[in-house]
Amino acid sequence: MSFIDCYDVTMNPKIEKLIKQFAKLPRVGNRAARRIVLGLLQDKTGRIEKLIEALIDANENIHACPVCGVLTDKTSDRCEYCRDTSRANGMICVVRDLSDVWTLEKSGVFNGRYHILGGLLSGVSGITPDDLNLRNLSERIVDENINEIIFALPNTVEGKTTQQYIMSMINTDGIQFTELASGVPLGGDLDYIDDGTLSLAFGGRRTI
Amino acid sequence: MSFIDCYDVTMNPKIEKLIKQFAKLPRVGNRAARRIVLGLLQDKTGRIEKLIEALIDANENIHACPVCGVLTDKTSDRCEYCRDTSRANGMICVVRDLSDVWTLEKSGVFNGRYHILGGLLSGVSGITPDDLNLRNLSERIVDENINEIIFALPNTVEGKTTQQYIMSMINTDGIQFTELASGVPLGGDLDYIDDGTLSLAFGGRRTI
Repeated sequence: MSFIDCYDVTMNPKIEKLIKQFAKLPRVGNRAARRIVLGLLQDKTGRIEKLIEALIDANENIHACPVCGVLTDKTSDRCEYCRDTSRANGMICVVRDLSDVWTLEKSGVFNGRYHILGGLLSGVSGITPDDLNLRNLSERIVDENINEIIFALPNTVEGKTTQQYIMSMINTDGIQFTELASGVPLGGDLDYIDDGTLSLAFGGRRTI
Repeated sequence: MSFIDCYDVTMNPKIEKLIKQFAKLPRVGNRAARRIVLGLLQDKTGRIEKLIEALIDANENIHACPVCGVLTDKTSDRCEYCRDTSRANGMICVVRDLSDVWTLEKSGVFNGRYHILGGLLSGVSGITPDDLNLRNLSERIVDENINEIIFALPNTVEGKTTQQYIMSMINTDGIQFTELASGVPLGGDLDYIDDGTLSLAFGGRRTI
């Protein structure tokens, strides 16, 4: 069943509009959007009001931290990671988006400052350096006395291109650039590892 | 990664609350909810405002038709199917929910009135007759001079149980009860048909 067809059938423009808005969300298809809207409108436990309330609250009170780009309350000028004095100074971990920060925080491997790019350079998707949160990165290096930039970007062509671009952009002396190691994941069976990863793991082999 | 873990990490109660609300929606998992919320909050095209607007509009102005249960504008007392004088009288098609009405309308096989139950009787899920939209069905049969009730319910134990319950509940004389035919779907290859369907198709075989 095509989505346009089911549109003609609902006959109610308000329901159609709501389905359309849900169908635009990432990971929500047309059928799921219909199911969500029906669920919300037929629910009797006030779920739709709670959703509206949470959306308005977040929309009005959340903004990107002007320093690193992490989403945070508008009441504070900087996010919890930039404010936290117990975190290590001198290191910035460059990531693609906020979910990467959450992943790293959960693992506990890093305790420094973050910098969220908000995307990766991509010729295919037409994402240029102007679309990324790069304006204040050079300033941060000077202001925060940074000596190491850790790239925790996806191990893809876009990730590596973005990394190279940022390295060429930053011409401050004495900055060390590092990236996450590539190789066989923990518990990884060689039978199931793709050739690219295997080649990276061989190239980066260590003496034991 | 468990959802609870990722909660601890976001550190922002407003974002957490919004993710939680999205994760409660049908067909949206925890990871998808995180992705949706990040997408909405980082979007710069006003998508979140449009979603809020459509939700508020639908929540304030849509209600279930008091006659048949189809979701419709509050401005009109009955839905477009109940109002439509060009539709056939005398027949009520009993369905589980609004998406079934949309499916039937798209196919164009039925042009009478509908009755939405809002669920099916289920011992497992604890759904009793009181949870279904059954109160006015007997009245409708008298008021609208109905002579045929067509059950277009899922071909499952719950569907059949609900059907039996409704038939035993309605003791109006001269009412014909019908159900959709069971059998091999159009284009169905016997190789791929399950035994239950095959048994129904055999039991219901017709002379040609």
